[in-house]
Amino acid sequence: MTSLPTGSVIGILGGGQLGRMLASAAARLGFDVHILAPDEDPPAARVAARHWQAAYDDQSALDAFATACDVITYEFENIPVASVEYLVSKGAIVRPGAKSLQVSQDRLAEKRFLNEIGIQTGRYEAVDTVEDLAAALDQLGGEGLLKTRREGYDGKGQARIGAGDDLKAAHARIGEVPAILEAFVPFEREISVVIARGPDGDTTAFEPSMNDHSGGILRTSIAPCGLSADVITNATRLAETLASETGHVGVLALELFVLADGTLLANEMAPRVHNSGHWTPEACLTGQFEQHIRAVAGWPLGPVTRVFDVEMQNLLGEEALSPPESFSADTVVTLYGKRDAKPGRKMGHVVRRGRKA
Amino acid sequence: MTSLPTGSVIGILGGGQLGRMLASAAARLGFDVHILAPDEDPPAARVAARHWQAAYDDQSALDAFATACDVITYEFENIPVASVEYLVSKGAIVRPGAKSLQVSQDRLAEKRFLNEIGIQTGRYEAVDTVEDLAAALDQLGGEGLLKTRREGYDGKGQARIGAGDDLKAAHARIGEVPAILEAFVPFEREISVVIARGPDGDTTAFEPSMNDHSGGILRTSIAPCGLSADVITNATRLAETLASETGHVGVLALELFVLADGTLLANEMAPRVHNSGHWTPEACLTGQFEQHIRAVAGWPLGPVTRVFDVEMQNLLGEEALSPPESFSADTVVTLYGKRDAKPGRKMGHVVRRGRKA
Repeated sequence: MTSLPTGSVIGILGGGQLGRMLASAAARLGFDVHILAPDEDPPAARVAARHWQAAYDDQSALDAFATACDVITYEFENIPVASVEYLVSKGAIVRPGAKSLQVSQDRLAEKRFLNEIGIQTGRYEAVDTVEDLAAALDQLGGEGLLKTRREGYDGKGQARIGAGDDLKAAHARIGEVPAILEAFVPFEREISVVIARGPDGDTTAFEPSMNDHSGGILRTSIAPCGLSADVITNATRLAETLASETGHVGVLALELFVLADGTLLANEMAPRVHNSGHWTPEACLTGQFEQHIRAVAGWPLGPVTRVFDVEMQNLLGEEALSPPESFSADTVVTLYGKRDAKPGRKMGHVVRRGRKA
Repeated sequence: MTSLPTGSVIGILGGGQLGRMLASAAARLGFDVHILAPDEDPPAARVAARHWQAAYDDQSALDAFATACDVITYEFENIPVASVEYLVSKGAIVRPGAKSLQVSQDRLAEKRFLNEIGIQTGRYEAVDTVEDLAAALDQLGGEGLLKTRREGYDGKGQARIGAGDDLKAAHARIGEVPAILEAFVPFEREISVVIARGPDGDTTAFEPSMNDHSGGILRTSIAPCGLSADVITNATRLAETLASETGHVGVLALELFVLADGTLLANEMAPRVHNSGHWTPEACLTGQFEQHIRAVAGWPLGPVTRVFDVEMQNLLGEEALSPPESFSADTVVTLYGKRDAKPGRKMGHVVRRGRKA
């Protein structure tokens, strides 16, 4: 495949808000979008030409989907790697590809991989049993963050552990599944780099944003991030290394802790468009969703120059049900069309733009 | 209806590129979009939650559509007025409403209406017969543009007439239907004002753009338009008058000729989002598509400040089939997903943005 002509079909595995925003960006470039997702009425399907309602490991659905689509991508990292490999075995073009997906599905594998390619992380220990947990706590100074190796997101599958805590109870709380204990990192700032890599190896990185989390959930991302040019250059290089070492095609995100001396420690990666890049469509010449579509379609990547100073704020749960009057003024609002505003659920985001300083 | 909550259903009559861009803007605000259009695979339906394939005058389809939608709008001006009236009689909220639609469907009625509310036009004469045409030519100095009263667009249903032309042949060429003869206007520039009006009567007007037509089809729109503040103020007032006198709710466009002395003569109006406003999403804080959705949903209108200098160029026919490589650099490309690139057909547009002078 060279570059995909307009009118081609782009398949997306997953039907959430990231798929919805990818689908809209793809449509804007004249592509048809098909969504494969098991849910009955996923947000992405309502802006797509077709919804294939099927489990991600339904081989006959995957066969038909592969036949219908010219290229297939995904919007979240818990798609079974086996499904991606199956699609590839059937001759489908799947981008980003299996490597970055596989690495990002397991926190332990991810950190080991990052370390192998020269990206530092905070200290961590593998935890399979309560005995492992006790030993890991000893190693890491008596406290840390216990996280399941797989399938945690937005603070789910996590437990903070400190002196005197009941280790058995903490291990039970995360379901007694394989886990890691992460040392607390004395960071000054959290940033992320959202980068796109094309099939020819070209990359374009958005400026890092400064991120603020609360309860494990991203609340705000701000650009510029306020760090020195040196730190920004280093952060961007780490993301470039990650993209090229995984052979990733499309957008990926690398979350980093910044220490007082400028040291960068990777927190986690996401092999996809990322919540901390939601400000890019409003603030940059090309946004992350269009950039991902350009990459997977083999189109030249767009320019990512930032033209506004910007703050992105997530709308969680009922925050997105505020009267529309509150979404006016100089904010750009994006709502995801989710039917059920559960507490803490990401329902939308607003972007405030200001003149670039 | 006060303001429509996110998650509501917005119905659009018509399935072309304007409907497609409206649907994407609506989805971004969390609305579901239903498209009613007779075509099998219209571009707008591929980015909407549901496509009702039905004729615009199919009353049972309109009944069901009205039941499914919280508000109904349209994307082009050849929807039968009777259908809008029928929907209203069934209790549906239809915005913009029937008045601006009715006026804009008949070139003669439109010009008479514009004159009645104090908006000057070029000279024109009604033409029903070849004899009328001869008399009209006498009145207008022996030349003019013969246009069908109804259903012409993009230069279709038009014939230029000058000295010595065969009037019977010209009348046959436009189908011998009711027509008008328009005098040629010695304009220096063509501009348009795209304005939005909310249900409470609030209006926001985008800056006028300077437009260039070729063969009756818009080729480029440029902002700023290069005219004096006085002329811009006058043009904006005319659009405000038109919006309020028609009780229009949503976006409408007024195309104007600018004479050497700054006199403004209306060329035509469109009771909808308009091709000459396609630069607004990329160059203004709120674009025309989102603004129309805000208006019909009863949301506060967004700010329309222009933040880039901009040139919009239509891609006609095979121009949109250029290799994607040509769509990179600092242009933003929008392609409409039309299957068939007939010569002269509007297939997409590109927007070039530059620093605001």
